[in-house]
Amino acid sequence: MIPTGTVRKPRGAYAKTAARRREILEAGMDVFATNGFRSGSIREIAEVVGISQAGLLHHFSNKNELLAGVLELRDDRATEYVDTAAPAGIETIRGFVRLIDYNAREKPGLVELHCVLSAEATSPEHPAHDYFVRRYIWVESFLTEAFTAMRDAGQLAAGIDPPSAARGMIAMSDGLQVQWLLRRDAVDMAQEMSNYLRPLLTVAL
Amino acid sequence: MIPTGTVRKPRGAYAKTAARRREILEAGMDVFATNGFRSGSIREIAEVVGISQAGLLHHFSNKNELLAGVLELRDDRATEYVDTAAPAGIETIRGFVRLIDYNAREKPGLVELHCVLSAEATSPEHPAHDYFVRRYIWVESFLTEAFTAMRDAGQLAAGIDPPSAARGMIAMSDGLQVQWLLRRDAVDMAQEMSNYLRPLLTVAL
Repeated sequence: MIPTGTVRKPRGAYAKTAARRREILEAGMDVFATNGFRSGSIREIAEVVGISQAGLLHHFSNKNELLAGVLELRDDRATEYVDTAAPAGIETIRGFVRLIDYNAREKPGLVELHCVLSAEATSPEHPAHDYFVRRYIWVESFLTEAFTAMRDAGQLAAGIDPPSAARGMIAMSDGLQVQWLLRRDAVDMAQEMSNYLRPLLTVAL
Repeated sequence: MIPTGTVRKPRGAYAKTAARRREILEAGMDVFATNGFRSGSIREIAEVVGISQAGLLHHFSNKNELLAGVLELRDDRATEYVDTAAPAGIETIRGFVRLIDYNAREKPGLVELHCVLSAEATSPEHPAHDYFVRRYIWVESFLTEAFTAMRDAGQLAAGIDPPSAARGMIAMSDGLQVQWLLRRDAVDMAQEMSNYLRPLLTVAL
């Protein structure tokens, strides 16, 4: 994981810089989500923000650095829904389902971004490859912890293996994104995720 | 779906053309799988085959036409494992699991191709967008038919909804590909798919 930054209170010139950085990252998110990282260009992102390429490069010295910033911003948003500091358990799983629902309703651009970037980053040469490998390992271990705690609390159906449930839940989330992006009115991601989880649990979601 | 061609017995000059077309499609598969369709170029594909760009354009008049051929070749391969002519049922599901296992062992390039193309084709402007929308509708309806027949035969667990199981199985397949491409030795796609299906069924896979 790219570490998330500490919380600061921006003021004056620093606040202006932070606001501009944020604008660039939001534009980067849009452009990478639509065109992928490889085809998305600094020029296009600068155009969306309404600044020159030189102006953009003052904030991020190259496309890879901008990508790292975009991924960090995205992770920050996710932790608003999934409390990664609390002990993992059924609340972790519930938080993920709420996050899926929130993203579908409010942040379709984040869904596009994850879908396209995770696919292109499977190539070992991609600049975000190592980030995605580490991120998937981390999410899998976090969800495995949650499912293990649930098993110990008698909340998991007989025969369900926590690491496999963790991998399954991640796969379901990623795969539903593709279907939803192709046909937004035909697929309810949070509903389908609940349908996936129900046979694994002995308690309500 | 792009319709699959009729079976022909190539001879002489025609056989040479067919063999060259095939070579180009295989190279296109590799290049699109690694770089995506947007970043993959005719020049690069021609280089892999060892012919000129003009030589390649003699067989496929543009990149979109080549992409259509690549997707058709891929669908032809899939039907070797899933008999789409037979009545849908548990054998359909078993065929899909065998296909996943075969692709992981023998055709990792096909997995990459599907993963990257389906993600970038979620964008409505992508030349394969309509193909993927139609393909997902078709696979969902085919799997829904299979799960419905299984429900009627008492092979589905109580409370399992056939259309939702169909969407879930497709999502699981797509999502497992991402994890497997990121860490091939850590994920057994066919095993995880079986783990997903087991709680849905009253019979063995």
